[in-house]
Amino acid sequence: MRTRAAVAVAAGKPLEIMEVNLAGPKAGEVLIEIKATGICHTDEFTLSGADPEGLFPAILGHEGAGVVVEVGAGVTSVKPGDHVIPLYTPECRACPSCLSQKTNLCTSIRATQGQGLMPDGTSRFSTLDGDPILHYMGCSTFSNYTVLPEIAVAKVREDAPFDKICYIGCGVTTGIGAVINTAKVEIGAKAVVFGLGGIGLNVLQGLRLAGADMIIGVDLNDDKKPMAEHFGMTHFINPKNCDNVVQEIVNLTKTPFDQIGGADYSFDCTGNVKVMRDALECTHRGWGQSIIIGVAPAGAVIETRPFQLVTGRVWKGTAFGGARGRTDVPKIVDWYMDGKIEIDPMITHTLKLDDINKGFDLMHAGESIRSVVVY
Amino acid sequence: MRTRAAVAVAAGKPLEIMEVNLAGPKAGEVLIEIKATGICHTDEFTLSGADPEGLFPAILGHEGAGVVVEVGAGVTSVKPGDHVIPLYTPECRACPSCLSQKTNLCTSIRATQGQGLMPDGTSRFSTLDGDPILHYMGCSTFSNYTVLPEIAVAKVREDAPFDKICYIGCGVTTGIGAVINTAKVEIGAKAVVFGLGGIGLNVLQGLRLAGADMIIGVDLNDDKKPMAEHFGMTHFINPKNCDNVVQEIVNLTKTPFDQIGGADYSFDCTGNVKVMRDALECTHRGWGQSIIIGVAPAGAVIETRPFQLVTGRVWKGTAFGGARGRTDVPKIVDWYMDGKIEIDPMITHTLKLDDINKGFDLMHAGESIRSVVVY
Repeated sequence: MRTRAAVAVAAGKPLEIMEVNLAGPKAGEVLIEIKATGICHTDEFTLSGADPEGLFPAILGHEGAGVVVEVGAGVTSVKPGDHVIPLYTPECRACPSCLSQKTNLCTSIRATQGQGLMPDGTSRFSTLDGDPILHYMGCSTFSNYTVLPEIAVAKVREDAPFDKICYIGCGVTTGIGAVINTAKVEIGAKAVVFGLGGIGLNVLQGLRLAGADMIIGVDLNDDKKPMAEHFGMTHFINPKNCDNVVQEIVNLTKTPFDQIGGADYSFDCTGNVKVMRDALECTHRGWGQSIIIGVAPAGAVIETRPFQLVTGRVWKGTAFGGARGRTDVPKIVDWYMDGKIEIDPMITHTLKLDDINKGFDLMHAGESIRSVVVY
Repeated sequence: MRTRAAVAVAAGKPLEIMEVNLAGPKAGEVLIEIKATGICHTDEFTLSGADPEGLFPAILGHEGAGVVVEVGAGVTSVKPGDHVIPLYTPECRACPSCLSQKTNLCTSIRATQGQGLMPDGTSRFSTLDGDPILHYMGCSTFSNYTVLPEIAVAKVREDAPFDKICYIGCGVTTGIGAVINTAKVEIGAKAVVFGLGGIGLNVLQGLRLAGADMIIGVDLNDDKKPMAEHFGMTHFINPKNCDNVVQEIVNLTKTPFDQIGGADYSFDCTGNVKVMRDALECTHRGWGQSIIIGVAPAGAVIETRPFQLVTGRVWKGTAFGGARGRTDVPKIVDWYMDGKIEIDPMITHTLKLDDINKGFDLMHAGESIRSVVVY
């Protein structure tokens, strides 16, 4: 079949909207009509050429929602008509990682996915001239129709709006999951979020959901404050207005009883390795945990004195919020539909596929939280 | 009263054996006759002058065992005649840290202890001329008699030999506790220990106690192998004999089912920050945990790419093995007496106080695992 798609033809170039060929689903695969897709910083990271593992030409996009159109041989967990969210982190429930019960990082199709291919080592996409076009993060939601492995598809309820729940395919789950799955924040905790963009806002609402007492937001831009407060931030620090953000957080979290101070949990949503160090060091001696969510530039390293860890701080990271996609994503859709979490205010722009490059422009200009393409 | 002690008069100088004055216990304090004390690398670190927080003159030693001689006003948990192990990490059971139930790093007397003083801000030790001599790590076990706060004394069974259980005051508890309390290693795990000195050997026997399947030891010295095997090591790697120790460990831990490989847990017992990075990066994607035990040189930093954490590895540290001294140390003494753990083969040398500097010489020469001074 043919489908319209935004193709990343080369690093640093705008996406090109074109008709492409899409082969039908093979055994264990699913053909999906994408109804909506968010534009994420990770798409931008790859499109810019900064991603050392970026491959071209490819169809980017990994934050979608849509409807199953056709299933390949042996597919049992979804059927045509099912509403689904594509998963860039699959959940096969059979590999060493899934069976470990310790991680969400399913490894069953990692090698081929990293090469932009389906599990059989080929691509379903090609140009009208027959030249292959690569998949991206196993999803390629910048195409109106796409093919995914069954294990990379989360079935969700049918009354949820595609143009909102697509964001659960990456940003919402990453932020909320970092709080719930990775940090396992408990009621009454004090937490700090560095970077109040889309991920940061979702960490904030994850912290609110988890019952945190003090939710400190840190950002260089004061304009982020109102939206952050809407999503649960209780205290704001602009590092431009203080000498030492670590000391500021330590002081803010002291109590008459606890004169040591420090956050119980911190989250880096900036990708800046210097911020990651501050995020670790502002946590409480003895038990503070710092979670890295942001993606750092290629080759960048984090550093600290080992004394920070020996005195009880823990340094962790999270990918897709530690969520097992097929199991957890449907629950997060329920939370949205039940009003436990909010998404609508974060979808600041809705675009047509033809205008997808505008979404990247809005991101660069810092004008959007999330732009969503509706097919 | 007067007591004989080995006094660290200045950085880099041998200890001087002399008579010193010791004031009796004030309220909440305990006078202890030290029967035996180990000589630990931390004593050496301070004596050498490398410890930026080292203070002189002081009476070093923090790995002792002895008998309560006298108690100050208000002391209720021990009485004269009780056998005890001094604790450089106290357990007050009332400060924010103790009450957090998340850390063993009691902070109730941290400030004064760091200054070499008892909680009231004074020292009990002085020269015969009346000049104050500082306490060290709140213990000063290189004195035949010493004073400690009640909260820094663990009461232990009376049939346990002082010259062995003194080692539980630091090295044994640090190594075993890192496995049990900090890493919480589960039965069947695969673990790596970097550095097979005294702490490393205790990590090994902690892993054996925890039921680990594969216990890999890494050391530059092949001579460490027999003793390490005695304490539970199942596989040995000398980095001199392989191109890349991380890859070697990854390969060793692969199975036909799990072709990713990596240790479930790793422990750094070297204090070398480059080794600490290897220790993190050899752990398994998705869930590997690396625990820093070794003390790094002042100012040294650890580094890694944040990708290592984002893909599920966790970087932790431990102090005193995460043990709450008054609660956990008596249990470890029981384990020794019950034969669940071994100490005797690690006590390679027994000295008199007059010969304590020989203990440091043996340590420098790499000839001892642990030298113990018996009073």
